[in-house]
Amino acid sequence: MKKYAILGFGVVGGGLAEVMADQKERIDAAAGQELELGYILVRHDYPDSPFRPWLTRDFSVIERDPDVAVVAEVIGGSDAAYEYSRRAILAGKSVVSSNKQLVAEHGMELAALAREHGVSYLFEASVGGGIPLLRPLCRCLAANRIDQVYGIVNGTTNYILTAMDAQGRDFASALKTAQELGYAEADPTADVEGIDACRKTAILADLAFGWNVDPARIPTTGITGVEPADLELARALGYTVKLLGRAARAEGGCCALVEPHLVPLDHILAAVNGVTNACAIRGSAVGEVVLCGPGAGAHPTASAVAGDIIDAVRHISDPVVPDLGKPGGVLVPADSLAGPWYVRAEAEPAAVLAAFPEARPVYGASRECGFITRAMTRGELDGLCDGLDVRAVWRVLA
Amino acid sequence: MKKYAILGFGVVGGGLAEVMADQKERIDAAAGQELELGYILVRHDYPDSPFRPWLTRDFSVIERDPDVAVVAEVIGGSDAAYEYSRRAILAGKSVVSSNKQLVAEHGMELAALAREHGVSYLFEASVGGGIPLLRPLCRCLAANRIDQVYGIVNGTTNYILTAMDAQGRDFASALKTAQELGYAEADPTADVEGIDACRKTAILADLAFGWNVDPARIPTTGITGVEPADLELARALGYTVKLLGRAARAEGGCCALVEPHLVPLDHILAAVNGVTNACAIRGSAVGEVVLCGPGAGAHPTASAVAGDIIDAVRHISDPVVPDLGKPGGVLVPADSLAGPWYVRAEAEPAAVLAAFPEARPVYGASRECGFITRAMTRGELDGLCDGLDVRAVWRVLA
Repeated sequence: MKKYAILGFGVVGGGLAEVMADQKERIDAAAGQELELGYILVRHDYPDSPFRPWLTRDFSVIERDPDVAVVAEVIGGSDAAYEYSRRAILAGKSVVSSNKQLVAEHGMELAALAREHGVSYLFEASVGGGIPLLRPLCRCLAANRIDQVYGIVNGTTNYILTAMDAQGRDFASALKTAQELGYAEADPTADVEGIDACRKTAILADLAFGWNVDPARIPTTGITGVEPADLELARALGYTVKLLGRAARAEGGCCALVEPHLVPLDHILAAVNGVTNACAIRGSAVGEVVLCGPGAGAHPTASAVAGDIIDAVRHISDPVVPDLGKPGGVLVPADSLAGPWYVRAEAEPAAVLAAFPEARPVYGASRECGFITRAMTRGELDGLCDGLDVRAVWRVLA
Repeated sequence: MKKYAILGFGVVGGGLAEVMADQKERIDAAAGQELELGYILVRHDYPDSPFRPWLTRDFSVIERDPDVAVVAEVIGGSDAAYEYSRRAILAGKSVVSSNKQLVAEHGMELAALAREHGVSYLFEASVGGGIPLLRPLCRCLAANRIDQVYGIVNGTTNYILTAMDAQGRDFASALKTAQELGYAEADPTADVEGIDACRKTAILADLAFGWNVDPARIPTTGITGVEPADLELARALGYTVKLLGRAARAEGGCCALVEPHLVPLDHILAAVNGVTNACAIRGSAVGEVVLCGPGAGAHPTASAVAGDIIDAVRHISDPVVPDLGKPGGVLVPADSLAGPWYVRAEAEPAAVLAAFPEARPVYGASRECGFITRAMTRGELDGLCDGLDVRAVWRVLA
């Protein structure tokens, strides 16, 4: 028998307690021994909760209980979550986490501490929610040199872009619906400005390329600048618009960015709609795999955290700590990442073709046109756009 | 240092030797120790191969070498592959395999033998080729009651159906191109009749539901009966045609089948084209995840086998053997699996609507129409079709 503790009793913590109880028999079998809920760390009273007997406000009770082998940190943020994760590891307990902010900002340090203290530190749920993503990347594809990871790693923005594309709505109206449905928070900044996607992209880059990436240094553009005209012109060109987090191998480091991209309609990511997430991994042997599923939500996220609890218990004597990379890698400027671009401009065909002979501009309801360029850097693009009245520029997934 | 041996030097064996050599440093790091190629078991001479120093025709040399910790069986079939897998396990070596026929037919027995002898038996590459699929199913999703698995698990047939759909070609012509491109074998029977998909479906069912399924008992229909008219009518109805392997949880067992299905164009599987494979997993906590990628090919398959070699070496003292289920589960007749159906018939609208008031028949280039029924069993469908001149009936993915 091993005890586990849950830190936090919000959406994910509640879902985790439910999943662990609902599937107890299956989970015990997979773990190879009985797992027993020890404590749930809370900050409020929950007088009506069926989990009331397990609630505690005192972390030190968990810290001092030698039977607690695994602590699931589902608090979020990087204050209390960081402090408790550290203390749990120092107390010899494995830590599993769904907390992308903490893993992106302090994961390397916590991983080193876990290695030092002979415990596991796992965080499958921190990217892609319920999608099996980090374990496949680190274990199933361990024989690959990973060259690129990219994907739709934020459900809120994908819901909004899907609604704008399918229903011709503007950003504000689609956001309002997302908030009404509970897919966006009252303050949607972290999602719509790409901050959440940036943290997840940092974690993917850490695991894929062996260098630890500071999320604050990843150039990040959210979706507030995407207009209905972009979706209309993109579709006429054979594309849709998705917010992608991307990280690519580069000399001595990697290149990472979060930006809206035009995605070809025949690419599988174009079929990933609503709050669903998907991540593509390009490896030297495998080619490309794409993993899709629910990127958030109580039970999907709990599914991934519970999988980590099972893994941590199975590896008590041989702990597992994914390699979040070494410090000091070069973050290659994203502007030097060459690729095709989408340009929306108010311009006559002749003016477009004078600057971009390869372009096939299409015109929408307004006098603006959209076109796709050949592959080039952002610097080259800006030079060629010099004489055009440019309204929007987005990368194209190639 | 641990040695590994490769049994078989065909497409997969050659690819595996290359991947293990190309990524040696990365693979050793992931395994936590140096891995050294010990032997490659061959039946022919390869005088020009760079791997000539490692070739042997004598399995007993491998069997008797105490330094060989892992044997990768990539021979295929269930004769020599079975014999050597058994002997390797009896000699205390972990076995990893890409061989779906062997795993589907004898996996349960070999898994029991591996458990008995304290070694790992892993077969990630046997379903979905390079796609991380079985480890996510068994480990990442271990906290889920799996309710259904279904997917495109054969690349040859998906290539043919994609070509028929995109280019309006007939089966024979699309098959010919697939053969010219090396996507179909000279004798394409195992692929086009669904036999390969059936073996993979059996393995998925074994792992998902806890009962070992005899592939010979899975009702299997290939794609030779799919006509251009079906693809044309399907598209007019908002669908495409995919060969799906499906297995669903049922009372005391499961229900499994391999059949062409109409897949809604907005379903992610509809975007899986050419030789790409994809498998959807529905779990009680996670909802649905879809894993896509290359289902065959030398290096993608080697990627999965190499991942298993690494895992086996990491777990020498705590071997891993996925649970292929108990014998004796009930295989519920597929005909009792209710769902909507696609019917192609030569019939006037009035005749269709008399039998199927819910149908919205569409007419293609010929006098035949296609329509989708409400959910029902095959028995109910046949009763309602009694007076119609029916040309084709396929399941619809709902």
